[in-house]
Amino acid sequence: MDSMIGDFEGTLRSLDPREIQTPPRDGFSYRHPTTGLLEWMPTLNHGHSVTVKTVGYHPENPRSQGLPTILSTVASYDTRNGHLLALADATFLTALRTGAATAVATKHLASAKSRALGVIGSGAQAVSQLHAISRVQELDTVVEPAEILREADILVTATSVEVGHGPVFPDGEHRPWLHINGVGSDFPGKTEIPVSVLQRAIVVPDFLEQARKEGESQQLRPDEVGPGLMELVKDPARHADAREKLTVFDSTGWALEDHVALELLIRHARELGLGTELNIESISPDPHDPYAIGSRVVLPFRASGRRR
Amino acid sequence: MDSMIGDFEGTLRSLDPREIQTPPRDGFSYRHPTTGLLEWMPTLNHGHSVTVKTVGYHPENPRSQGLPTILSTVASYDTRNGHLLALADATFLTALRTGAATAVATKHLASAKSRALGVIGSGAQAVSQLHAISRVQELDTVVEPAEILREADILVTATSVEVGHGPVFPDGEHRPWLHINGVGSDFPGKTEIPVSVLQRAIVVPDFLEQARKEGESQQLRPDEVGPGLMELVKDPARHADAREKLTVFDSTGWALEDHVALELLIRHARELGLGTELNIESISPDPHDPYAIGSRVVLPFRASGRRR
Repeated sequence: MDSMIGDFEGTLRSLDPREIQTPPRDGFSYRHPTTGLLEWMPTLNHGHSVTVKTVGYHPENPRSQGLPTILSTVASYDTRNGHLLALADATFLTALRTGAATAVATKHLASAKSRALGVIGSGAQAVSQLHAISRVQELDTVVEPAEILREADILVTATSVEVGHGPVFPDGEHRPWLHINGVGSDFPGKTEIPVSVLQRAIVVPDFLEQARKEGESQQLRPDEVGPGLMELVKDPARHADAREKLTVFDSTGWALEDHVALELLIRHARELGLGTELNIESISPDPHDPYAIGSRVVLPFRASGRRR
Repeated sequence: MDSMIGDFEGTLRSLDPREIQTPPRDGFSYRHPTTGLLEWMPTLNHGHSVTVKTVGYHPENPRSQGLPTILSTVASYDTRNGHLLALADATFLTALRTGAATAVATKHLASAKSRALGVIGSGAQAVSQLHAISRVQELDTVVEPAEILREADILVTATSVEVGHGPVFPDGEHRPWLHINGVGSDFPGKTEIPVSVLQRAIVVPDFLEQARKEGESQQLRPDEVGPGLMELVKDPARHADAREKLTVFDSTGWALEDHVALELLIRHARELGLGTELNIESISPDPHDPYAIGSRVVLPFRASGRRR
């Protein structure tokens, strides 16, 4: 987690938007056989590689199949020739990188005197959010639901609230320096935070274009949305006074986070001698004749129901 | 090839557009370190699966690296829960399905008396185009370049002509029943067929929305584009007189073809006991706690230069 936080913050600090392109994610949503989303999140690292994360979001998974809500796979392709370079499960990686983004935002937006954390939502993301925040801010209390808004210095919302059923807490009295991480904001119409709170706050989106489509920023006019996370990291002195004010990190999940996470995973796999080399390519020795070869299939192991 | 042609034609015949969704492909194009494209082509088969083909197009590959222009990978995801179901190299599959689409169009649009085929372009696709057409139409001659337009009953253009450098042959005298398959049409500004030919022809796009962005249909007004391939296959009697007229199949490459091709490959792999079962997932046994596991990486075998 420390490496992931460090790598993501370092990437934001040195980011040249001409070198890295991340179009807003796109995907399919459906209600049959179950409510779900399947999305692809591409990143171009110009001159090097393209990372594509494919991510499924199926909120019935934990109850009906004993599986996490989010299942995901991430791949890297070489832009010199199109080769598939690496493929990894991204279920854990998604929890990790979402935590790391919150940690970077919290490091820049929470008051240094923060000790009490409130978490709304008790799924897989709650665990990694708590873990990530604890790496950048000393905590001594996790606040109970009854006092959550009044007592929290830092608040996380990480719920699967349905479209149109937000917010997930009522507006009310809170610390003047409260910092909220809106993590479960990731679908048109799905919002977790009362609009009155957002309007009083400095709202920092991870990725503006996407946050205005899917995040808490859907509820705001363009001029009500504050600086992006990248601007905050690039010029922390300019935004230092935000720490003592009400702030919201509008986290929708950014393809750049997945790109950084996969690069980190590959680096660690190489250092530790982990990973499997696998040839799934069937390329003819004559580039002008495709018929010298057959094609190979990989069928990932299928577990029915809960994995043991 | 016969199975692929049959499966694709059968899919078009029974296709319910509410059941299958194929948004136009999207991707990154770049000129550094070499001219290239990396695109993703998704298909939703409602209630069952999502297929995503990732395809690289690097025209320098054959000359500089001894690799095919097109390198590609295709994956299938389960829409019940997000599991990755299968992964396959799609380099050969792309040649195969592009050939099959041409075969279906040729079967419906070429005159039954056609015997002479002309092919403009001599890359990998030329081979699979010739193969595919030979499965639906008896051929006895492949026409020489000098007589290609005048002597051909069926013509294929499958070139890597650069944006703005088309057409790849001049307008001129031809058989009244000439059928042209415009295969190398797949990028904004890239066209192979003279606009005067297109304007005299019945132009049948594989996938209208994409053909108007990337195909020969870019050169036409909306009312100059004819019925789509699906309409032709669903109601062949209605369009039977097209066989004796000048026709163009505007093939841009349709995600649906990749979906059908992967389903065919999986079916054959299962029947023949081929393919490798591989667990790349790292899913915690507790869906509410992501920390029970680490994450696995697969690093596909990398060949430097030509594969032996």
